[in-house]
Amino acid sequence: MTSIKTTLKRKQAQQEILQAALPYIESGKYNQLSIREFCHEIGVTTGMFYRYYKTKSDLLAFYAIDTSKLLFDSLKDNFPTMSLREKLVSFCMASIKPLQTMGPESLFVFLNVKNPECNCDVSRQLFYDQIRYVFDSTYDGHQYAEEDLLDISNQLVILEKGIVYEWYSRQDDPTFELMPVAEHCFDKALDAYSFLNDEKS
Amino acid sequence: MTSIKTTLKRKQAQQEILQAALPYIESGKYNQLSIREFCHEIGVTTGMFYRYYKTKSDLLAFYAIDTSKLLFDSLKDNFPTMSLREKLVSFCMASIKPLQTMGPESLFVFLNVKNPECNCDVSRQLFYDQIRYVFDSTYDGHQYAEEDLLDISNQLVILEKGIVYEWYSRQDDPTFELMPVAEHCFDKALDAYSFLNDEKS
Repeated sequence: MTSIKTTLKRKQAQQEILQAALPYIESGKYNQLSIREFCHEIGVTTGMFYRYYKTKSDLLAFYAIDTSKLLFDSLKDNFPTMSLREKLVSFCMASIKPLQTMGPESLFVFLNVKNPECNCDVSRQLFYDQIRYVFDSTYDGHQYAEEDLLDISNQLVILEKGIVYEWYSRQDDPTFELMPVAEHCFDKALDAYSFLNDEKS
Repeated sequence: MTSIKTTLKRKQAQQEILQAALPYIESGKYNQLSIREFCHEIGVTTGMFYRYYKTKSDLLAFYAIDTSKLLFDSLKDNFPTMSLREKLVSFCMASIKPLQTMGPESLFVFLNVKNPECNCDVSRQLFYDQIRYVFDSTYDGHQYAEEDLLDISNQLVILEKGIVYEWYSRQDDPTFELMPVAEHCFDKALDAYSFLNDEKS
């Protein structure tokens, strides 16, 4: 059995490598380097890298989930002044943001489910948990139907995938801008949920 | 300049190869064969194949677009008895159907925009044209706003990509069934367009 201490140490080491990787991911350079080149740049051995990340795209998955969590946490500070609907759109935009930073090329490596380290269940569960948090932070008790929550979560997560796919396929189209398109799509999708319009925050 | 006769001959040859390929595509066998093996099976030379299709996945793109057009044409027969909303959902389902038949593996080969033969603009334009036909067949003249039409078309095409992506990523999940999920997603998305609810067919 892995002890809590070991788990924490592991997470810390993963975080340290991620921190070193950030400038490379955010400049798009990460995608162009081999693991060996990347490890040389940040000054770790490839053995050390493989101890904490299974593959090059495993690190991207870690980045996407970690950054999305951080963005969501900072979003929470503004929750008291926001309507449920505004919270939902902001949350969705925060989940798109790290994917945008990663860039379409890395994104597609990350999203290719043939890579076993991209565990789609994990990110879907995280998405649902965060949406649930948004609802819980708005309503006292459970004035919403669990069914609606699941339905919204599924619809938004599928839409998110579609937006990202569209973005990937229109990389050479200067008229396509990820963030405004995403915001409009999410906003439009929420129009379908009439109970969002008579909510009190 | 290519004459109409040459274009027609080309289309006919493409159709003949596609017809021969159908059982292989629909049984999932196409994906497992190399071009050479496939050509041997259907009795054409690889030279002949490459004369009419650029790559293996070019044939899949041709299949998807061709089948979707055929399904859409057969759908039109039932249009007089359908509401605008029913037509839109049926149209979307008809556009998913060939992708389902193709299977997730082939689908991903086809959807990978790195293959230049998968021209996303072509399929997006086709999607829009068919949605426009749905509207035109419902309203006399132009009682709908062009803006709404574009908005619905974009939203549905992005959603379609998300659904297909979700399907691809959940191939091993027995609880995920493409057709019911797709129908629910499209139907839910249309809830956002209030003018669909007070339309007359």
